[in-house]
Amino acid sequence: MISDELWQQVIDYIKKSNQFTLTTHVNPDGDGIGSEIALFYFLSNLKKKVRVINHSLTPKVYRFLDPDLKIIENFSKEKKEWINKSDIIFILDISTKERLGDLGVPVSESSAIKICFDHHASSEAFSNINLIDVNACATGELIYDLIYKYNNAFTSEIVEALYISILTDTGSFRFSNSTVRSHLITAELIRMGIKPREMYEKAYEMSSWEKIFLFREALSTLSKEGDGKIACMYITQEMMEKTRAKREDIEGFVDYLNVIKDIEVALLFVEVFKRGTKVSLRSKGRIDVNELAKIYGGGGHYHAAGIMMHNVSLKEAMNMVINVVDKKIKEKMNENKDSGSQSISD
Amino acid sequence: MISDELWQQVIDYIKKSNQFTLTTHVNPDGDGIGSEIALFYFLSNLKKKVRVINHSLTPKVYRFLDPDLKIIENFSKEKKEWINKSDIIFILDISTKERLGDLGVPVSESSAIKICFDHHASSEAFSNINLIDVNACATGELIYDLIYKYNNAFTSEIVEALYISILTDTGSFRFSNSTVRSHLITAELIRMGIKPREMYEKAYEMSSWEKIFLFREALSTLSKEGDGKIACMYITQEMMEKTRAKREDIEGFVDYLNVIKDIEVALLFVEVFKRGTKVSLRSKGRIDVNELAKIYGGGGHYHAAGIMMHNVSLKEAMNMVINVVDKKIKEKMNENKDSGSQSISD
Repeated sequence: MISDELWQQVIDYIKKSNQFTLTTHVNPDGDGIGSEIALFYFLSNLKKKVRVINHSLTPKVYRFLDPDLKIIENFSKEKKEWINKSDIIFILDISTKERLGDLGVPVSESSAIKICFDHHASSEAFSNINLIDVNACATGELIYDLIYKYNNAFTSEIVEALYISILTDTGSFRFSNSTVRSHLITAELIRMGIKPREMYEKAYEMSSWEKIFLFREALSTLSKEGDGKIACMYITQEMMEKTRAKREDIEGFVDYLNVIKDIEVALLFVEVFKRGTKVSLRSKGRIDVNELAKIYGGGGHYHAAGIMMHNVSLKEAMNMVINVVDKKIKEKMNENKDSGSQSISD
Repeated sequence: MISDELWQQVIDYIKKSNQFTLTTHVNPDGDGIGSEIALFYFLSNLKKKVRVINHSLTPKVYRFLDPDLKIIENFSKEKKEWINKSDIIFILDISTKERLGDLGVPVSESSAIKICFDHHASSEAFSNINLIDVNACATGELIYDLIYKYNNAFTSEIVEALYISILTDTGSFRFSNSTVRSHLITAELIRMGIKPREMYEKAYEMSSWEKIFLFREALSTLSKEGDGKIACMYITQEMMEKTRAKREDIEGFVDYLNVIKDIEVALLFVEVFKRGTKVSLRSKGRIDVNELAKIYGGGGHYHAAGIMMHNVSLKEAMNMVINVVDKKIKEKMNENKDSGSQSISD
């Protein structure tokens, strides 16, 4: 819970400030982008000067929130001055400083007040003011609270962006962060005019035939590993070229495997041009894949994590990671047997 | 909206009755099964004598609501007497009499008061008392209302079953029936103890490796038809045998295609042993697939419909249906051009 004093402090800072920079993490998701867009319109409606400057390009799927590409900019050196002269920098949905990417140095060097809104458990308090609430389903929930407390002036653009924040970060209300509050806020957003079906199509429609053809290629590599407890797929550079799909098209592929009943962990290995192999890990809940990813310098959450294995071939990466995951699952099974509780192999 | 008088009438009937039969439509879905289970526990908790008797078996994915198979029974002749002697028969989530299947005759012949709860627009009022609300997201929403109005005594089994009703019938809150009210009720159900992640895994986990291997086979047949406006897949009997998947495993396959951005209609053709070809149609919103299905004696909704083409081979069915759908899309495109509005080919 964020205290009333802290909220009031942020509201006072906004009132007396004029120039704002908003940013979010590298490879932004629907919550990062949605929170930025909502906050952009809120501040613009207050006649403030606002720019949204990110490290990464906006993923294609979220561009409908900024259709004329007039809101979100990519960082370049000449934008340093704006960042430096800002009164406030809002840092959104970021758990660690590193996730600022190219914005890291200019944000640190700026004399602006840095205000962080986040809902990650692992969040470091690295800003001047930190509004971190691990019980919030998304950063968008905190932006909703801010606007509600400030002037309750929700325009259609704000409502749409906040809905996308909550919809995508709760996985369409299926993850454990689908709370009473996330549904109550969503009810309000629908009351204010959101059309859920339209929003869903925008946020989740496959971007292209290329994407689904790439998924078909990936699925053709599907294998049962670790006595059927691991579902594994891979994507080669050749498949990418053949289908003409883009890197961002791969999003969601590994989650599809994670619904297989009998598995513990789903893995996706992607051959990355000149760099090595990217691994995505998903857990059904009994194995902490964040812990596993850390072994190779990766990270994420308990249920979802990733690793970038530099200069490691697809085949090597698969051998290494499958082995480690398999070992972990077997350990866990033995633990459960020893403690007399139900074995996960049941 | 259902009037207070009608609610009171139903409550009075329940109060003075002792023996109940509950049923739902052939090939029941999460809403049909969830509504039955919730109503079963509600009435049992009132110390009423209740049996749930269906035409079809409960799909595997919903059996967790009745894990010991002690609640839902399948119809057989010796159950006629129970149905006949019931004081009330609750007919749940059924829009037309035909969807009662084998229960049609015994229900009609029974001297019981028939009370129908439904939310389908096409619902025929064929019972003695009809509680039909097309604004309800699911029949489960009406069962929630009944229990709330009767005694507000929600037990964990009731809460779980109602959550499954709403979750599955709104497609995890993405269809247009995701209303303010469906979110407010869901917030209540979570407040009463529902764990969304667990529920989602139960309701949506792929039932088996067999299912995902069948999906891989189906996806390998994916073709672009009708100038890329139709996405089409098929499943042969050979694929079913090869993967050892079950008929019910096919559920959801066609919906996966329907997220492709550029299409208007997704089609799935399934070769059915000794019978012909089953066709599933999905629309992105501009084509009424219910209307198209009717041409071949099928039906459903605007966005989702099905046809059973008896004694028609897979190949013939594909030729016929793709042709008709393609023609309809072209007609629609020309209409839009003529009226000067934006063409759907844009």
